Amino acid sequence: MSTPVPATFGSLWASLLPIGRDPGTGGYRRFSWTPSDRECRAWFEATARDRQLRTHADRNGNLWAWWDVAGADGNTAVATGSHLDSVPDGGGYDGPLGVVSAFAAIDELRAGGFAPSRPIAVAAFTEEEGARFGVACLGSRLLTGAIDPDRARGLRDGDGITLAAAMQAAGQDPGRIGRDDDLISRLGCYVELHIEQGRALADLGAAVGIAEGIWPHGRWRLDFTGQADHAGTAALADRRDPMIPYAATVLAAREAAVERGARATIGKVTAVPGAANAVCSSVRAWLDVRAPDGRTLEDTVDQILAAAEQESGANRVTLASRQESFSPEVEFDAPLAGRLAAALAGHGIGAPSLPTGAGHDAGVLAGRLPTAMLFVRNPTGVSHSPAEHAEQGDCSAGVTALAAVLRDLAG
Amino acid sequence: MSTPVPATFGSLWASLLPIGRDPGTGGYRRFSWTPSDRECRAWFEATARDRQLRTHADRNGNLWAWWDVAGADGNTAVATGSHLDSVPDGGGYDGPLGVVSAFAAIDELRAGGFAPSRPIAVAAFTEEEGARFGVACLGSRLLTGAIDPDRARGLRDGDGITLAAAMQAAGQDPGRIGRDDDLISRLGCYVELHIEQGRALADLGAAVGIAEGIWPHGRWRLDFTGQADHAGTAALADRRDPMIPYAATVLAAREAAVERGARATIGKVTAVPGAANAVCSSVRAWLDVRAPDGRTLEDTVDQILAAAEQESGANRVTLASRQESFSPEVEFDAPLAGRLAAALAGHGIGAPSLPTGAGHDAGVLAGRLPTAMLFVRNPTGVSHSPAEHAEQGDCSAGVTALAAVLRDLAG
Repeated sequence: MSTPVPATFGSLWASLLPIGRDPGTGGYRRFSWTPSDRECRAWFEATARDRQLRTHADRNGNLWAWWDVAGADGNTAVATGSHLDSVPDGGGYDGPLGVVSAFAAIDELRAGGFAPSRPIAVAAFTEEEGARFGVACLGSRLLTGAIDPDRARGLRDGDGITLAAAMQAAGQDPGRIGRDDDLISRLGCYVELHIEQGRALADLGAAVGIAEGIWPHGRWRLDFTGQADHAGTAALADRRDPMIPYAATVLAAREAAVERGARATIGKVTAVPGAANAVCSSVRAWLDVRAPDGRTLEDTVDQILAAAEQESGANRVTLASRQESFSPEVEFDAPLAGRLAAALAGHGIGAPSLPTGAGHDAGVLAGRLPTAMLFVRNPTGVSHSPAEHAEQGDCSAGVTALAAVLRDLAG
Repeated sequence: MSTPVPATFGSLWASLLPIGRDPGTGGYRRFSWTPSDRECRAWFEATARDRQLRTHADRNGNLWAWWDVAGADGNTAVATGSHLDSVPDGGGYDGPLGVVSAFAAIDELRAGGFAPSRPIAVAAFTEEEGARFGVACLGSRLLTGAIDPDRARGLRDGDGITLAAAMQAAGQDPGRIGRDDDLISRLGCYVELHIEQGRALADLGAAVGIAEGIWPHGRWRLDFTGQADHAGTAALADRRDPMIPYAATVLAAREAAVERGARATIGKVTAVPGAANAVCSSVRAWLDVRAPDGRTLEDTVDQILAAAEQESGANRVTLASRQESFSPEVEFDAPLAGRLAAALAGHGIGAPSLPTGAGHDAGVLAGRLPTAMLFVRNPTGVSHSPAEHAEQGDCSAGVTALAAVLRDLAG
C-alpha cells in the first residue's frame, strides 16, 4: 500500500507505545485495574479530550468517547474501537490498534470536512484478554448481560484479589456492574478493527480483510492428582506421577487438533510442590480448544479428554476436568459485512472475508446488535507475543478503511 | 518388632512434629535460614541442653551436640545424626528421624549405664535437601570442602536472596563458611540413621537395614525456547511451541529409565508467560536422573537429551541443557558396615544390605572419613511427601539398633 500514514496515527501510536511495556521482555503487561491500566485510561481520556469528544467510563468500566451530533442525538451511534489490555508479555497491536485507528479515522474524517448524521463512539473494553481475572471479554460480557455480575465480582486474580476489590481500589464502584440496556440501546452497530492473528491476509496479499465469523472456543482446566515421592528412591512401578499423563495429554491435544483441523493448546501449567528432586503430587494445566464449528470442537475435546483419562488411569493418577469458559460460534451480521465490503470497494480497497479463531468483544456484542470486524495484515501471523507486528503502511490502510466505513455508516 | 518405643523417643518426636508443618497440606516446609529453621535449631539446642550435651553451630551452620568424655577427648568422636530441613511439603521422617533417634539412643545408652571411651556427637546438617538454595547436602559439602565458599555464598533462593544474605539475616556469619579440617579431624566416623525412601525393607520383612552405597545422580536444567503465539489463530504448522518437545521429553525420560533400570524424574516445570490462551514462549524443566552405576547414568541421560534435542528440532524450538549438580557413586566404608552388621547381629537384629538412590550427608562425608547408614523400614516406600510414614515399632527398632552401634563403636 502506498497510502501515507496519517500524521495523527503515528503520534497517537507513539504516545501509547511505552505504557505497560516490560523492559526485560519488550512485551506488554497491561492488566485491568492495575497502574498500567490506569495509564492506558488516562491516555484514552486525554486523546478524546484533545478531539473534543465527550468521554466517560460506563458502569462496567468500559471507556467511551462520543462524537456527538447536534440535532441527531436521537439516532443510534456507530461504535468502533477495541481494547487496551494485553495478555502477559503480549504485543502492542492486539487491541490498541483498533482504538488508535478509531481516533485516527475520526481525525481523517474531520480533516476531510465530514459531517456525520449519527453520533460516532469510540470504545475501549475492559479485560478483553481475561489475563487478570480469567474471563475473556469481561467488559463486553458484563455490558450485554452475558455474565452474572455476582459471579464477576467474585472472580479472583492470581494473588486472590477479587474483581470487586480491584475495581474498588481503582475508584470504580463494583456494585453497579452488569447489563446496561440503556447504553446498548444508543448503539446502532459496532465495527472493531483488529490486527489479524494469523497469516491469511499475508498469504492473500491483502492489507485489510473483513471477518466472517469467530470459531467456537473453550477453555478447560485439567487437574492431574498423583502422589509426591522421592525422585531417587521411589521405584518407577510404584509411582503415581501426574507429570506422565500430563505430558501424554499435551501430545494427544496436538494430535487431535491436527487430525480434526482444530486448534488445541496448553500454555499454562503448574506442578505442585515443584521440587527438582521429587515426583510431584499434582499438575494443573489449562487446555484451550477452538474449531471451525461446534461439532468439531466437541469431538476434539472428547478425544483429548479420553486420552487424558486413559493415561491417568494407567498411572494411577486421578483426573478432574472442568470447563472454565465457552464461547459458541459467532457469525457476524451479513448485511453489515456486505455494506463494509461495498464501502471499501468504493474506495478501491479489496478486502477478503476471513474466519478467525480468536474471541473478540465484537463477538460478544453480536448477540445484541449488528457487529463487524476489519482485520489488518500481520506479516508473520505471530500474536500474543512481543514479536507481534504490522507494517506502518498496513496500519495506514486500516485507518483509511475504517474512515471509509464510518463515513458510509454515519453519513 | 515387639521392642517398646523408648519413652524419650515419643516425647522428642512429639515436640518436633508441629514445627514448620503446613496446615493446608500437612507437609513440612522447613527451609534453611527461615523462621521454621530457627525453630528447629532452637529445638535441637534445647534437646541437647536437657541432656547436658555441649552444643554449638559450626562455621557452616551445621549443629552439633557433644557427649564429651573426660580424659578421652583426644580420641576421635563417633558422630551420628542427620538433618532437620525438608523438601517443599515433605514428610516428617526424612532427616528428623535420624536426629531424634540419635538423642533417644543416647538416652537409652545412659539409661543402661553405658560409659563411652570416645566422645559421641549428634549432628544436624544444614540444607541437606537443597530445597532453598538448590544444592543438596550444602552444609556437609561446605564442611568437607566439596563446594567453593564463594559459589555457595552467591547461591540464590526463589526470591533472589543469596545464601550470604540469608545467613547474615539469621545471625550467622557467611564470611566464615568453608572447609573445616579442624572439626573433621575430631570425627572418627559418622553413622546416619534415615527412613528408607523405597520399599526394599518392607519387601524383605526387615525393620532395619544397612546401606551399601548411594547411586550416582545428577540434576539437569532444560530450557526449551520457542515463540509465544495466539492459541486461537496461530496455525499448528506455524507454531514453535516449546510445550510439545517438553512433553515428549517427559515421556522419553520415563522410557529411558525403564529400559535401563534407572530413575528419571521431572517434578519441576515452569512455562512462560503462562497464559491459558497463548502458546508459551519457553518451558524450563529440571530433570533428575539416578542409576546403579556411572555408566548407566550417563547412557540414560544421553538417551533423554537426544530425544529432547530431536523433538525440539522437529518443532523449531531451541534446547539448552545444563548440568546443575552431580554426585558420583558412593560406596560406604565396608569395614564399618561389617562392624555395624556384627553389632546388630549381636543383639539379634538382622539388617540386610541395601543400595539407595537418595543422596545423604553421609555420602558427602564418605570422602573424608568412614561413614555408614542405617535405614528404617518405610511400609509404603513413599518419601518427599506428607504421606511418608514409619511405624512406631520400627522407629523403636531403629533407636535400639543405633544404640547398639554406638555402644560398639564408642565402647
